[in-house]
Amino acid sequence: MLLLSSSSSAASSSFKHLFRRATLSLTYRTSIKPRLNPATTEALWTNTTKNFSPLFLGRHHSTATNMSGSTATSRKQPTWRVPEGTAVPKLKLYNSMTRTKTDFIPMEGNQVTWYACGPTVYDSTHIGHARNYVSLDILHRVIEDYFGYNVLFVENITDIDDKIIKRARQNHLFNNFKSATTTVTPEAIAKAEAAWKLYAEAELNAIDATAAGQWAAFVEKINKDATLKSTIATSHPKFPMHFSALVEAYDAIEAAKKSPSTTDVAAFCDANKTTLSNLLDKELSHTVSDPKVFRDLAAYWEGEFFKDMDRLGVRRPDVLTRVSEYVPEIVDFVQKIISNGYAYEAEGSVYFDTAAFDGKDGHHYAKLAPWSKGDATLMEESEGSLGIKLSGKKSSMDFALWKASKSGEPAWDSPWGPGRPGWHIECSVMASEVLGSGMDIHSGGIDLAFPHHDNELAQSEAYHQCDQWVNYFTHCGHLHVEGQKMSKSLKNFISVQQALEKYTARQLRYFFLLHQWDTGVDFRDTSMGEAMGVETTFNNFFANTKAMIAEAKHTALDSTGTHNFRRLELDMIKALKEKQSAVHAALCDSINTPNAMAELQSLVSRTNVYIKDAGKNLNVEVVNKVATYVSKMLKTFGLDGVVAEPIGFSSAAEGSVSAEDVAMPYLQVLSTFRDTIRGYAREGRPVQEMLALSDKLRDEDLERLGVSLDDREDGKALIKFIPAEELAAQRQAKIQQAAEKAARKEEAARAKEAVRLAKLEKGKVSHLEMFKQAANASEYGSFEEGTGIPLTDKEGQELPKSRKKKLAKEWDVQKKLHEDYLAEVAKGTIV
Amino acid sequence: MLLLSSSSSAASSSFKHLFRRATLSLTYRTSIKPRLNPATTEALWTNTTKNFSPLFLGRHHSTATNMSGSTATSRKQPTWRVPEGTAVPKLKLYNSMTRTKTDFIPMEGNQVTWYACGPTVYDSTHIGHARNYVSLDILHRVIEDYFGYNVLFVENITDIDDKIIKRARQNHLFNNFKSATTTVTPEAIAKAEAAWKLYAEAELNAIDATAAGQWAAFVEKINKDATLKSTIATSHPKFPMHFSALVEAYDAIEAAKKSPSTTDVAAFCDANKTTLSNLLDKELSHTVSDPKVFRDLAAYWEGEFFKDMDRLGVRRPDVLTRVSEYVPEIVDFVQKIISNGYAYEAEGSVYFDTAAFDGKDGHHYAKLAPWSKGDATLMEESEGSLGIKLSGKKSSMDFALWKASKSGEPAWDSPWGPGRPGWHIECSVMASEVLGSGMDIHSGGIDLAFPHHDNELAQSEAYHQCDQWVNYFTHCGHLHVEGQKMSKSLKNFISVQQALEKYTARQLRYFFLLHQWDTGVDFRDTSMGEAMGVETTFNNFFANTKAMIAEAKHTALDSTGTHNFRRLELDMIKALKEKQSAVHAALCDSINTPNAMAELQSLVSRTNVYIKDAGKNLNVEVVNKVATYVSKMLKTFGLDGVVAEPIGFSSAAEGSVSAEDVAMPYLQVLSTFRDTIRGYAREGRPVQEMLALSDKLRDEDLERLGVSLDDREDGKALIKFIPAEELAAQRQAKIQQAAEKAARKEEAARAKEAVRLAKLEKGKVSHLEMFKQAANASEYGSFEEGTGIPLTDKEGQELPKSRKKKLAKEWDVQKKLHEDYLAEVAKGTIV
Repeated sequence: MLLLSSSSSAASSSFKHLFRRATLSLTYRTSIKPRLNPATTEALWTNTTKNFSPLFLGRHHSTATNMSGSTATSRKQPTWRVPEGTAVPKLKLYNSMTRTKTDFIPMEGNQVTWYACGPTVYDSTHIGHARNYVSLDILHRVIEDYFGYNVLFVENITDIDDKIIKRARQNHLFNNFKSATTTVTPEAIAKAEAAWKLYAEAELNAIDATAAGQWAAFVEKINKDATLKSTIATSHPKFPMHFSALVEAYDAIEAAKKSPSTTDVAAFCDANKTTLSNLLDKELSHTVSDPKVFRDLAAYWEGEFFKDMDRLGVRRPDVLTRVSEYVPEIVDFVQKIISNGYAYEAEGSVYFDTAAFDGKDGHHYAKLAPWSKGDATLMEESEGSLGIKLSGKKSSMDFALWKASKSGEPAWDSPWGPGRPGWHIECSVMASEVLGSGMDIHSGGIDLAFPHHDNELAQSEAYHQCDQWVNYFTHCGHLHVEGQKMSKSLKNFISVQQALEKYTARQLRYFFLLHQWDTGVDFRDTSMGEAMGVETTFNNFFANTKAMIAEAKHTALDSTGTHNFRRLELDMIKALKEKQSAVHAALCDSINTPNAMAELQSLVSRTNVYIKDAGKNLNVEVVNKVATYVSKMLKTFGLDGVVAEPIGFSSAAEGSVSAEDVAMPYLQVLSTFRDTIRGYAREGRPVQEMLALSDKLRDEDLERLGVSLDDREDGKALIKFIPAEELAAQRQAKIQQAAEKAARKEEAARAKEAVRLAKLEKGKVSHLEMFKQAANASEYGSFEEGTGIPLTDKEGQELPKSRKKKLAKEWDVQKKLHEDYLAEVAKGTIV
Repeated sequence: MLLLSSSSSAASSSFKHLFRRATLSLTYRTSIKPRLNPATTEALWTNTTKNFSPLFLGRHHSTATNMSGSTATSRKQPTWRVPEGTAVPKLKLYNSMTRTKTDFIPMEGNQVTWYACGPTVYDSTHIGHARNYVSLDILHRVIEDYFGYNVLFVENITDIDDKIIKRARQNHLFNNFKSATTTVTPEAIAKAEAAWKLYAEAELNAIDATAAGQWAAFVEKINKDATLKSTIATSHPKFPMHFSALVEAYDAIEAAKKSPSTTDVAAFCDANKTTLSNLLDKELSHTVSDPKVFRDLAAYWEGEFFKDMDRLGVRRPDVLTRVSEYVPEIVDFVQKIISNGYAYEAEGSVYFDTAAFDGKDGHHYAKLAPWSKGDATLMEESEGSLGIKLSGKKSSMDFALWKASKSGEPAWDSPWGPGRPGWHIECSVMASEVLGSGMDIHSGGIDLAFPHHDNELAQSEAYHQCDQWVNYFTHCGHLHVEGQKMSKSLKNFISVQQALEKYTARQLRYFFLLHQWDTGVDFRDTSMGEAMGVETTFNNFFANTKAMIAEAKHTALDSTGTHNFRRLELDMIKALKEKQSAVHAALCDSINTPNAMAELQSLVSRTNVYIKDAGKNLNVEVVNKVATYVSKMLKTFGLDGVVAEPIGFSSAAEGSVSAEDVAMPYLQVLSTFRDTIRGYAREGRPVQEMLALSDKLRDEDLERLGVSLDDREDGKALIKFIPAEELAAQRQAKIQQAAEKAARKEEAARAKEAVRLAKLEKGKVSHLEMFKQAANASEYGSFEEGTGIPLTDKEGQELPKSRKKKLAKEWDVQKKLHEDYLAEVAKGTIV
């Protein structure tokens, strides 16, 4: 009970009393220090209770003045017992480096360095990406916001890659073909047929070798026989995709042949896009040399990727690195690996020397998946689709650090000739550039573990000459759709956009939260149904509790004289604490969100039981406490969809307002400005008025709205939000400064004018008359003809030479002054 | 690099590969378990790396099918090294139980139980309360939100107290008197004079004993002698307050005596309120028996207290307890202390037996301030102003647990007769009811340490038979105003409302953050100036960084091919990490907010240096990272003024966006428009271009934002919000309509022209010749001279009159046509 009256003398004297003690302590400290070992004294002052010495306070208080009449022992603080506490779980993470859950210990205090493999940008993101990035986002948020670590999160964009090159080139060549083809000529049809055959041979050859050369008949046949089609599809998963592309092209070609003049040429091209792109790339890839072709495709899909991530509520990385921006660093990195003896050049490419590396100086190749070492299929596929010559490799286990570029492929200069980075090297280089010679966490999808991450580890450890470049490798599990691997050929490919047409981003996140991040998940309508059920549970809980709290807020304080914190409330608070501990334990257990979510759901059920049992005696504070905790946890998981916490403080608008309400004042200012400019333009008003208008816009209209436009050299104003009062004060200060400056200027002008006028005043007298004037007349006897310069003094004696010289100088000065005066008179500026 | 194509077979086969491993592990685990000690098996599966056994993975992988052709050792994961980490400071709190900083260890896991002394509600809160509750709020937020503890925060409202009783009774009796007094009668004046004398005797007696009985003359004298007045005021701090009350009443009485009929009766009563309340309470206190009188006053001031706390941004406690609601529990508690042998009843009151308690069974009395034991002044003042008989006490160190109530005081039944709780017992009882037999933290102002908190400890330890009821006692330092103790009598009393008229709640919080919570603070205009300077630093930083981030957000991806994460950025990130660690260390050091704030300010300066150094190559991501961290910390300190985190999710489906984010796109359009107009004006471009620009603004820029500007006759456009697609469609439709209209117009013009040309063609023939032409020539015999109108037919017979009339009409028509034709020929439009 703090007394509300400040004039309470009890309170104040008590305060003074304690304050005196503090002063005494200080005195004591200073006086006793020299007599003790400094370390001991310091320990007495700063130590924790374990080392607490009653001696100190005993002596201290025995020196106090108001201690008379009591025993010394009763005048010191008794010994304080250090609380024992209970064991609290600490964070463990499932670590692919050990395939176990290991205690999470960052290298440096509470700082966590984290590198995550980002996308290769050449197509739209699908639900599998959503799984990876949303789950990673949940890990990121929990480690940052729940466990309180300071995280530096780096992610890359792979914008140099064989898939990007091929896609960009094909699109480019197809679009060129399409715009050059203005009518369906026999040549165009022939080209389409050739493309069709090439594709059919390449893609269907493995399916029905007996039909070789009779592709058209084969397609006709399958088109009529659904059973045959499905039999083939079962054994050849990509068959339906190829087949439908061929059928579409086939139909278009047949139709064009019958009636070329009535065929829409654009539609004809589009129907043959798959096959034509394939043929054109075979024939013309070497003609594509503009790097913009490749960069533009990557830039477009990078933009789309982040749009999707924003929609999914995924936080942006702290640092984003693009491969195309790091090529010089990659070249240096590769060179150092060569000079360290772990890589070699062959035919313009550079390969990692796995045999030289594995087992040397404590190095291990393929730490994450040693059992996959030498898996030819995986290795080959990871080398990219544009087939560099493998003949230069010493071993099939070796992999490319640098690839020689053929024509039609983007190329950068290097000591080994024009080329481009291999697939794995980029992550080693960019992570090292930003995070240094090691990191705490490296993340990625499980499909990247081998060979990509193992190669990354090998390269980096070869470069840094270290044996543990990454401490924690976290791999996100794969996603299946309705039990099957997702693929375009299976037609179960679900893009993020499609998923978001069916479900909200929040529902998808609920779904991922209900599955452990490092296990496989099956994206099924039924399991999405479960996730939506969980969402409903929480939504209902929040709606109910908010209504109860709002109701209580508008109820006056009652004076029944009884409280409502009894057995039911004590039990509810006890249950809350148990659930909080259980959620903590779940998150410490490698961020087990399914368990954490289960505990939160069970807390909601428990609270609903309390609400029911309490009935009319409901304690809203307790309900509020629980609901606030549940909200906080769900927000920590990112379920509120907030991607970036705002910088600074919210502009404290009370309650929620619509975007239109917010935008309206700014639009009014804009519209009025435009109206006025139009009016001025119509009336042909001078441009100065338009400039004045633009100043008024800045200084009055936008200032009122708390917006500052800082005009800059380049003519583009910088927009800032600053409170209106502050802006007004700033502008006022500026005006005052300007006024002061103007006043100073005016004063200087006035002084200058005074000098000028004084000179003119002086110049009124002609140099011819100056020495003859009354004041001087008595001094001299005679004057030189024509100039009026004195010759003799009043006694008639010739003036000394020096005197004459001086007078001649005075005469020159006066001549100048008088001429100036006459000139002004002539100009009419003085009378 | 996660591949964006799901159909990558490399990815999927790698996945399958790893997945098979997991299945094998599981099989192995099940099969080997019976042969091993279960604990050992479990350890192999869940342990951390220290216990990691290569044996397990070795065996496991030796059973795999694809391992042929390699040595076993190369097929297992190498040993992983546990990261060493570096020491991280842990939270210590300055603990009044030891007067040192001690490690903070909660009793139960991450749960923290916390009890804070709340207000005695009978007057408005002042800046001293603001200091206490805002500083406490900062501790609360940091321990909950920064250190991540689950806190249960209990606070009480003292609504039974001698000060409340006296204030409520006096207000009640005065209001009764005032409403009963409808005119200024001689009786009313006499009553006021009696009240005046009583007050003067009681309050001024100690000041000038010699003036006894001549109060009016004394007041007159002092009123005339400023020196005397100030001499008295120096030695008697409360004198000015009493004196001004007496002067106000004196003047009112003198005026009423002279002209009772013209005196406003309400104003007369109000001017005598202080003195009359005092007299009425003396005479009539026993008549006040309605408990509502006391409860209503407390309820009113409790409401005001929370209004002020809300304004100050102080979080509400989780559980709020009122003494009036806990009287039965208090009676039980007191009874148990008696039965435990530590209290005794005397004359209807119950006292704590300090002698029995101190030293028995490990108990200590006055643990917090043992040197204050037996301080009679402090003890007496803490027993309240309504003077219970002290004669029943065994020792002056004993204090009341239960007070017998006299008439005019609220009373509750008890085994010792009607009475009410003593001052200290409430906290012991309510904290025990909610938190059980002990707690982690107990907070309050430093002026409560003795005797209030020491008595609380004694009572509670006597009740629970324990020796450490509270583990951490945190006392907030006192507040002075401009170097002086604040009091109404010193006229330097500043209410929270007054403070908030001068400063914002955020500025006050900045001020408190800049002072360590457990030290005294001096509330000076100059130090508030410093706090406002700090506020400006952060505001400018946020405004600048937000502007940079917003600008970058709306700038397209560039493709320069270079990154901007180089030495400057590495250094900046390094500085950020150092500051984060320094802030952590400061907060661990007993929540040293002045140091934490200094580190944050220094981080801002460092960032401004980076911004300057980076110039055009600024990396906005890095700036964003710093600004987000600084914002997060300031929000953790409660500077954003958010008292309660909302329950559930924000209603906006797409997450919450700030008003600034909403406004930004409109402002950008406005600013760009203005920039361009300025450029045009400077270059003296023609007005048509400005009009074209204003059309572009409407048709392109604003359409894209879903805003329609409908230009109107009066030159003021109407602003509408219409989805962009709809606007585009509308504009397209308009363009089409206009095109169709133009086509129709053209068609009509063409038709009109055809008619005209036909007419002209027809007009080529002269009316004079028209009937003589070959086609007609055979029809007629003769023609009228001069006109050529036929007179006779080819037979020479005169034409009938009607025929002639018709021909004349035709002639007239042709004349008009021919003249039109000749006119066009003359104009040269036809040949």
